[in-house]
Amino acid sequence: MADPSTSPSLSRAGVQAARERIRPYVHHTPTLTNATLTALASSPTPPASSDAQSKTAETVSSAETEARAEVGRTNGGAANAPKAPVMRLYFKCENMQRIGAFKARGAFHALGRLMDQPGWLEGGGREKGVVTHSSGNHAQALSLAARQHGIPAHIVMPTISPPPKIAATKGYGANVVFSGSTSTEREAETARVMKETGATLIPPYDHPDIILGQGTLGLELQEDAAALIAAEEEATAGEAPAFFDYRAPAKGLDVILAPCGGGGMLSGVALSCEGTGIKVFGCEPSHQGADDAKRGYESGTRVEAVKSLTIADGLRTPLGNYPWQVIYERRLVSGFFSVDERQIRDAMRLVYERMKMVIEPSGAVPLAVALYNDEFRNLVAAEAGEEGWDVGIVFSGGNVELEALGKLFAPE
Amino acid sequence: MADPSTSPSLSRAGVQAARERIRPYVHHTPTLTNATLTALASSPTPPASSDAQSKTAETVSSAETEARAEVGRTNGGAANAPKAPVMRLYFKCENMQRIGAFKARGAFHALGRLMDQPGWLEGGGREKGVVTHSSGNHAQALSLAARQHGIPAHIVMPTISPPPKIAATKGYGANVVFSGSTSTEREAETARVMKETGATLIPPYDHPDIILGQGTLGLELQEDAAALIAAEEEATAGEAPAFFDYRAPAKGLDVILAPCGGGGMLSGVALSCEGTGIKVFGCEPSHQGADDAKRGYESGTRVEAVKSLTIADGLRTPLGNYPWQVIYERRLVSGFFSVDERQIRDAMRLVYERMKMVIEPSGAVPLAVALYNDEFRNLVAAEAGEEGWDVGIVFSGGNVELEALGKLFAPE
Repeated sequence: MADPSTSPSLSRAGVQAARERIRPYVHHTPTLTNATLTALASSPTPPASSDAQSKTAETVSSAETEARAEVGRTNGGAANAPKAPVMRLYFKCENMQRIGAFKARGAFHALGRLMDQPGWLEGGGREKGVVTHSSGNHAQALSLAARQHGIPAHIVMPTISPPPKIAATKGYGANVVFSGSTSTEREAETARVMKETGATLIPPYDHPDIILGQGTLGLELQEDAAALIAAEEEATAGEAPAFFDYRAPAKGLDVILAPCGGGGMLSGVALSCEGTGIKVFGCEPSHQGADDAKRGYESGTRVEAVKSLTIADGLRTPLGNYPWQVIYERRLVSGFFSVDERQIRDAMRLVYERMKMVIEPSGAVPLAVALYNDEFRNLVAAEAGEEGWDVGIVFSGGNVELEALGKLFAPE
Repeated sequence: MADPSTSPSLSRAGVQAARERIRPYVHHTPTLTNATLTALASSPTPPASSDAQSKTAETVSSAETEARAEVGRTNGGAANAPKAPVMRLYFKCENMQRIGAFKARGAFHALGRLMDQPGWLEGGGREKGVVTHSSGNHAQALSLAARQHGIPAHIVMPTISPPPKIAATKGYGANVVFSGSTSTEREAETARVMKETGATLIPPYDHPDIILGQGTLGLELQEDAAALIAAEEEATAGEAPAFFDYRAPAKGLDVILAPCGGGGMLSGVALSCEGTGIKVFGCEPSHQGADDAKRGYESGTRVEAVKSLTIADGLRTPLGNYPWQVIYERRLVSGFFSVDERQIRDAMRLVYERMKMVIEPSGAVPLAVALYNDEFRNLVAAEAGEEGWDVGIVFSGGNVELEALGKLFAPE
């Protein structure tokens, strides 16, 4: 990894610089809206859909809310249900990013920075390659970035990793090295690879270059949501009632909800919003203590170890040190919300059924917060009132085993 | 149903008239491209992905083809693989249509036409309502259209229908009436409802109003694909080699591949292309004789009964009489191609994994033809040569039980 002291500053400008660097290599992913989900989020009690009974409620309600959603954004949900929060949702589709998740951004940025580091290429860096330990999206992201730059990638994965993940990583041309499944075993194997090959370590989240790369999705989301909001304002301007015709110019998003695992992406998105007035919240699973960032943020002490088997498998890691500085010490994240396993599944199911989009469980966590977390919903109702908030929701990835979906959605 | 003799003509102009009628009620769904799938279709042997071995091949190959796809549309696949067809794919996303399938178009058109029929409203038509027998997308489409117009809908469904489908139909406010599962029993029950309530029958496909409504998706696809093609031509114009710099103006799609069950949508799409020069092909499952339209088209005699349990459950019905006239007698469809169950599953998996989109098995059939049907692929290679064809692919719907996905994708 490049020396952190040479990284662009951990600031909005740093994220902008990262964006220029990775622009040729990553997709500018779409930001989508969905009238049904926006209406559900603005209902007093958004329906779940995990079992037959609530399934009925869901379809009834969503058919109703679809009609309601067509009433238009200014009337959204507040009229007959005074306590419902009013939210308009904007979905950042990183499931459509290369390798199917936002991790491509950080990997391309980190590798690009490394290649520019004085002496790295001259010292044979390209031949020695890069290494990381990951069985998830970071493995594929680094493999892709390395291959595109003609650099060998060594990926340390537990022997027990799912065969399709191993195949996918090999598919991007990486050299997969197996290890035991404890973190000690993985780190020992990584150290061995580094010693043997001279490869440079590219960690998954705890580095400024990774943070800045992931943060680039925040800039795109802000721009695209602002354009959508402005277009909607213009489209409805002619329909405004004569009385109270005045309307403030479109101001862009009020809030972004992003998932938080190691915190690389969340801290990057927070940096991308610095100075914009957009509040950023972290979203976590509560299962078996996976809400480590929330607990750390609220107690003032970073939680350094997590052992959770939440279905949101991308969010099982504890918050890293660099992310902690951005998130907590600089208070660039305004707070955290957590959701349980059923709420994650319900949100994921709604995205499949209503948006027809494939997302992984980790990517469903922010929508679950918007739909089911009372604390967040009360905050929106109290602070945004009838005008409501424009809420950016990060769909962080879409890599899910199709074989596992049936099990995930099996009736309980 | 409105008297067919009063329907707009079965012509492109008729489809255009239908489009104006239903415009306020249905979505103009997006037309998307995907570099990886386009590159796979233009590979000599597109990989399947059903089992572990081919899964490896798939990920290797698609990682490679992703890079290849970035070379640009004019170089797509032809250079090192002289026998591969060159195709650029444009996906019409009717999975994002209201109720999750194109059927909303025909239902809104048929109902609108019925309401305008002289005497229908005056004769108490609105109070007597409408009726159909369907356990699929037509049931939900008619229920939605009826509710939006304040008309009761009676839906006859077999007692053994999946509970979520029953719940979804009830969710749109329909009165669900149960029957036995043979077609005789369903028709008898439908006749009873008509007699008892005076409700008007709205059949799923065999009526000009339904055909014209479904055909509207073809107009949107033609326009949006032409715009995408023109934008791409413009973007690459500057990069054209100095030698052979001449380029014909963008001409729009060459071909549309659409699924064929009862043939309402296929014949409507064919009408939407009349006089444009765009060839339309029907796509069917071959399983247990579900390729009835292909057999009928090639023998010159419509096949009137089908008994297939293909996973493409929307395509188990035989071709209707009105569709037959458009498709065969007027030769507005240029031919049919069929694919087996594994090819349908493989295409569906690629859409989930590569596009992150939820489609139902029936909706995957045209992509399966583009990827795996040698007859179609040889036709493209022979007729389109190195220049290739711009191919519209209809993703007809996205209504699939999540519980069933695991089973569908289980290793064999």
